[in-house]
Amino acid sequence: MPVTRAILTLNSGSSSLKLGLFTETLETLALAHVDRIGRREAAMVIRDAAGARLPLPAAAPDAFATNAAALRTALATFEAQFDGLDVIAVGHRIVHGGTDHAAPERITEPLMADLARLAPFAPLHQPHNLAGVRAALEAFPGTPQIACYDTAFHRGHPFVSDTFALPRRYYEKGVRRYGFHGLSYDYITSELARSEPALHAGRVAVAHLGSGASMCAIAQGRSVASTMGFSALEGLPMGTRPGELDPGILLYMLDEEGLTSHEIATLLYKESGLLGMSGLSNDMRVLEASDAPRAQEAIDYFCFRIRRQVGAMAAAMGGLDGVVFCGGIGENSGRVRAQACEGLEFLGLEIDAAANAANARDIGSGRVRVLVLPTNEEIVIARGASAVLDL
Amino acid sequence: MPVTRAILTLNSGSSSLKLGLFTETLETLALAHVDRIGRREAAMVIRDAAGARLPLPAAAPDAFATNAAALRTALATFEAQFDGLDVIAVGHRIVHGGTDHAAPERITEPLMADLARLAPFAPLHQPHNLAGVRAALEAFPGTPQIACYDTAFHRGHPFVSDTFALPRRYYEKGVRRYGFHGLSYDYITSELARSEPALHAGRVAVAHLGSGASMCAIAQGRSVASTMGFSALEGLPMGTRPGELDPGILLYMLDEEGLTSHEIATLLYKESGLLGMSGLSNDMRVLEASDAPRAQEAIDYFCFRIRRQVGAMAAAMGGLDGVVFCGGIGENSGRVRAQACEGLEFLGLEIDAAANAANARDIGSGRVRVLVLPTNEEIVIARGASAVLDL
Repeated sequence: MPVTRAILTLNSGSSSLKLGLFTETLETLALAHVDRIGRREAAMVIRDAAGARLPLPAAAPDAFATNAAALRTALATFEAQFDGLDVIAVGHRIVHGGTDHAAPERITEPLMADLARLAPFAPLHQPHNLAGVRAALEAFPGTPQIACYDTAFHRGHPFVSDTFALPRRYYEKGVRRYGFHGLSYDYITSELARSEPALHAGRVAVAHLGSGASMCAIAQGRSVASTMGFSALEGLPMGTRPGELDPGILLYMLDEEGLTSHEIATLLYKESGLLGMSGLSNDMRVLEASDAPRAQEAIDYFCFRIRRQVGAMAAAMGGLDGVVFCGGIGENSGRVRAQACEGLEFLGLEIDAAANAANARDIGSGRVRVLVLPTNEEIVIARGASAVLDL
Repeated sequence: MPVTRAILTLNSGSSSLKLGLFTETLETLALAHVDRIGRREAAMVIRDAAGARLPLPAAAPDAFATNAAALRTALATFEAQFDGLDVIAVGHRIVHGGTDHAAPERITEPLMADLARLAPFAPLHQPHNLAGVRAALEAFPGTPQIACYDTAFHRGHPFVSDTFALPRRYYEKGVRRYGFHGLSYDYITSELARSEPALHAGRVAVAHLGSGASMCAIAQGRSVASTMGFSALEGLPMGTRPGELDPGILLYMLDEEGLTSHEIATLLYKESGLLGMSGLSNDMRVLEASDAPRAQEAIDYFCFRIRRQVGAMAAAMGGLDGVVFCGGIGENSGRVRAQACEGLEFLGLEIDAAANAANARDIGSGRVRVLVLPTNEEIVIARGASAVLDL
């Protein structure tokens, strides 16, 4: 019987699960995405390396009742697809590695305890990531599990990009700018190194624009500054999160509106951003298709804040050689890319309208390169696992 | 007996009072500054138009016990100096004019009630401003009093610079970006119109760097974007305030540290910024003179955040023709000006080291003009009073 030795990657969220299956030599075998876990509308999509959808098994009624059940269902589907599937390592996306964990590493019980202590830094993400690890430890007892951190890519950035202007004790206890989306930035950087070595050696502002959104200033392949900070709330506006927000507004919500911190967290994590501004949707495609003035205002604001940050990232790097768009919106919205770059001709940034409309790879026509690159966090996790295990 | 008809300006803070005395034709007669009101170390300095110190009267022990007492003491000093002083109008700096008050206007009881309703938007400033108005109404019954708003200069800026990405009801109830330091930006704009018409017609990033600090993108004389937002906390780091801060940090302070909103407000308004980072002082002169590493880190952070915002302001305007430094730090710290512009040669921004060290007016040596302009909020208040009264 043939055996398929594979690295499994897991990205476990509050109600979603992304899996990747890779060969030992890091070829993609399959990618799975389970959405709306725990709800009746839960659904799984599995694709092969070429992007073709693979057949799904007849799912039991409770197939997606919990993240652990969804993991079992997805694994069963992989096993049906690949003869004698032998998972030799599991790589995990862990949103928060704190100040100390700056590279992929093998998961141990002490490490799990360490990572659990970081939950207050990412209360809406870290516990779900760690639950994913627990489920995988159960599913694959004895198989090496590797943590890959979304914060790691930024850990080397300079002090001025790491701190807030708070009393120093806050810096010491870990209230810093962690940046996030590091697996995506890591992938983009590796792509530039592979296909655009001159640009990789220069100064690039990367915009990861998905339901979460951030930008990163990457000079000579290293993170110099980022728009996300301590939590997943700061920086660019997002699907349901506000991005940059005056701290005085939280004091106003507490003192004048009498909101609790829980109510504020719900407001900021779930009801703000594109959804809150438009009153319509957190989905850029819906907003772009709408002729409601507030939908257009939400897009305008989103693009304006990206534009401001392109300037800020360029200033942080002392210049700009390239801009890269990635993430669902970055890869698919010509409108957003064009509007975000509007008025930035003074930086040497110009968009070729036809190439942009076609979602081409190279959409710039000025001195500054402008690229659209599909990101791939899963392969970065698989690479991390492979490197740690010296496969 | 000669009569000196004069416009009085008042800027009434929590423990400070600034007064200006101007002729009807807006010539400066004298400026007074009372500091540390209510404390034993309270002190007043009065200068004439040329900047020479004027003699102080023998002050009674309670001369500076309250803002009202300080006002009486300062007025008595003015009266001793100027024969038959006749105050024909009193202009007030009011930090917050809300969404509707976009120009100087005569103070009435309904207006006072309106402005008091804005106190929750600027709890640490507005009540003191209004207390100053009350004290002046008592001191000059029947004399016209005029409100001049620090928010007015920014009221015309576009929606994308006015809103946050919150549910729309917050915009409707006034949670917007008010900008602040508008009297200072108004003065700088008028100075550019007078002495640098070409630059005034262009795109200028103005950095008001005092114990409060902010930047404003001014294109063709109008505010296009600003770094301060809803409260006096956002944007650049300040003497004791943090500037840009991840909203997740406030949730952390509430949930993990158990701080009350009052404790957080104290931390953010009084204990952060340069003081919090350095652990030493909120005074840039003290930090520059110190060889403590944390003092240097605080300066580095301050300058780095200005640099980022120069890039952001340029992006908001679609280019950059000039940078203006004003405020106590902006006018006097060559170190800060040089370091804030470091690495911005790609924008055409270069500093002439000798001119900068001499605090010269024109310190740029590149395509982008760089000016050091002493600001003068008092004359803007006097102009506002004069315009409203059609003097």
